[in-house]
Amino acid sequence: MGNVGRAVVRLLQAKEKELRERYGIEWRATGVASRRMGWIARPEGLEAEEILALANRASGEKQGGAVPKVRDAAVQGGRSNPEASGVPLQAPTPQTKDVREWIAAARADVLMEMTPLNRVDGQPAVEHIRAALEAGAHAISANKGPVVFAHEELRKLAQEKGKKFLFESAVMDGTPIFSLFRETLPLAELRGFRGILNSTTNVVLAGMEVGLPLEEAVKRAQELGVAETDPSDDLDGWDAAVKVAALAIVLMGAKVRIEEIEREGIRRLDPAAVREARAAGTPYKLVCRAERAGGRVRASVRPERVPLGDPLAAVNGTSSCVHFHLDFLPGLTIVEHAPGVEATAYGMVADFIHAVGKEV
Amino acid sequence: MGNVGRAVVRLLQAKEKELRERYGIEWRATGVASRRMGWIARPEGLEAEEILALANRASGEKQGGAVPKVRDAAVQGGRSNPEASGVPLQAPTPQTKDVREWIAAARADVLMEMTPLNRVDGQPAVEHIRAALEAGAHAISANKGPVVFAHEELRKLAQEKGKKFLFESAVMDGTPIFSLFRETLPLAELRGFRGILNSTTNVVLAGMEVGLPLEEAVKRAQELGVAETDPSDDLDGWDAAVKVAALAIVLMGAKVRIEEIEREGIRRLDPAAVREARAAGTPYKLVCRAERAGGRVRASVRPERVPLGDPLAAVNGTSSCVHFHLDFLPGLTIVEHAPGVEATAYGMVADFIHAVGKEV
Repeated sequence: MGNVGRAVVRLLQAKEKELRERYGIEWRATGVASRRMGWIARPEGLEAEEILALANRASGEKQGGAVPKVRDAAVQGGRSNPEASGVPLQAPTPQTKDVREWIAAARADVLMEMTPLNRVDGQPAVEHIRAALEAGAHAISANKGPVVFAHEELRKLAQEKGKKFLFESAVMDGTPIFSLFRETLPLAELRGFRGILNSTTNVVLAGMEVGLPLEEAVKRAQELGVAETDPSDDLDGWDAAVKVAALAIVLMGAKVRIEEIEREGIRRLDPAAVREARAAGTPYKLVCRAERAGGRVRASVRPERVPLGDPLAAVNGTSSCVHFHLDFLPGLTIVEHAPGVEATAYGMVADFIHAVGKEV
Repeated sequence: MGNVGRAVVRLLQAKEKELRERYGIEWRATGVASRRMGWIARPEGLEAEEILALANRASGEKQGGAVPKVRDAAVQGGRSNPEASGVPLQAPTPQTKDVREWIAAARADVLMEMTPLNRVDGQPAVEHIRAALEAGAHAISANKGPVVFAHEELRKLAQEKGKKFLFESAVMDGTPIFSLFRETLPLAELRGFRGILNSTTNVVLAGMEVGLPLEEAVKRAQELGVAETDPSDDLDGWDAAVKVAALAIVLMGAKVRIEEIEREGIRRLDPAAVREARAAGTPYKLVCRAERAGGRVRASVRPERVPLGDPLAAVNGTSSCVHFHLDFLPGLTIVEHAPGVEATAYGMVADFIHAVGKEV
């Protein structure tokens, strides 16, 4: 429960009537968790306001924080606001010690998983999703890790259990990519794709185009809230490589590991060359590629000059873009413009509707 | 049964195995019709080769041709090729006199409708689809007319009958637009869109940009097979206006008639201004727009200069593009690149799978 979680709760609240009337969905949050608040379960339901208050209290949370004492994350029943009381509250909710106990205690039908990416082994997200599916709950994730490290296992497990494992927001936020292929492109064979999938490098390159050295451009991106404190995973192409892997695994059935993706970041680009390329109308972008070659899929992430008139050249700022080459549709490009946290939340709610909605 | 029909049959043939194994679909063509061949029904099934041979024979067909004599469109049973015999063949198939008799005689489960657009009243396509739905068959159309003139009626009729009325290929060929909203964007509210939806004007404007006067640019587009013999509906913005109306009606629930769309074609554009706009990097395009304004939807089609960095500026040749503005996704652009008749056929087959496929 962090920024995305809050946005999911607000969206579910805002669309409560449509969810009920159009998809037959009535929802109740029966558990909420974060490093700071721990594993809080209450099968009779937590009010949206309580969850938001809890999340606001925990919002100083940093990665690596210890699991807090119960009192720290306490909530009250009903609609009262624990923020307002000014004193630590007694927790009326059963506290559980790990994800499996928590899912059982919450009697969850659906898990929404939004931990950050761990690009080494995808944990703990893989274990969260496995636990949910094994307990007979649908699993929805905004995390690329489980897709890259355990897609096949989790897909099969979901199928065995008759549940869904969905992850629309893992790439390009809520923009339909996985559901586009799953729901609207039956029979289509994806031959390859090309895209710009990392917004930090896009913003950093824009800074270099107006004359900033790399370090200054990164600093500006950090001030804009686009780059993280340690931007290495973006600058070195890791984030983009994980996204390429996720798309290739799910959409092309490729067996590809992140280390197998040819990867070159933007650190070694000459700032003068970046300026000149932009002036010539063929700017540098960190381009992601995958294509079928023989029996396998070759994938790469590297800075490339994008030619004039290429749809990728028009992608600026925090926008993303992917161009698909299919057998019966020669070219299909999807562009996402300037998404915020609401777009990520939207993708998770769309997955939620796919998992539990019905035509009314 | 014309170019698109042939491509549909070829695609259904090419994907026969996947249709059966992945979607549980086994198909049989039990009727085929065109102005020239008339209404041919054979419930025990026509071979794909027979249909293609019939269509090839009728391919000299022009609009306005009379319904032919039976012998003209004759087919033989089995796999023999009527083309090869060199003499008119006896028709073993029951001939029927109109669409209703034909659908009944063919015992159709699905109608695929691909007559050309009639922008005055949408006929005879509206009647074809009505007849199919009333007879308890799914109706799939590549024609914008029924969407613009009778969407509400046909949608309700389909619902009453528990059948589908689908028309993915009516706008941007097989590119998922209607299914994108229907299947992958639940709850999303479409606030407006902007797009380039007419490829003829796009190609004509490109000709003018390199110095051709309008008439020469049109001639070149005709030589490329992009513009029709009478290109008025394209040049005057009618084709684009019908597409805007179809999108606004289906995706925004708008009650909009074609005549209510502000419409200005490209005939009055000054060729020098077109050249200068391109040189400045802000080319003229025939831009389609719709947006919610108060309780209604305002729509327009007119030449506009597209700013630098706008995804619409990168749309060239026969490509199309539409940019959607949604409540929870700030911007989503879909670009279709250089489609052929296979793309239209693909959209119809995708609709077919949506109508009758099941998860295997």
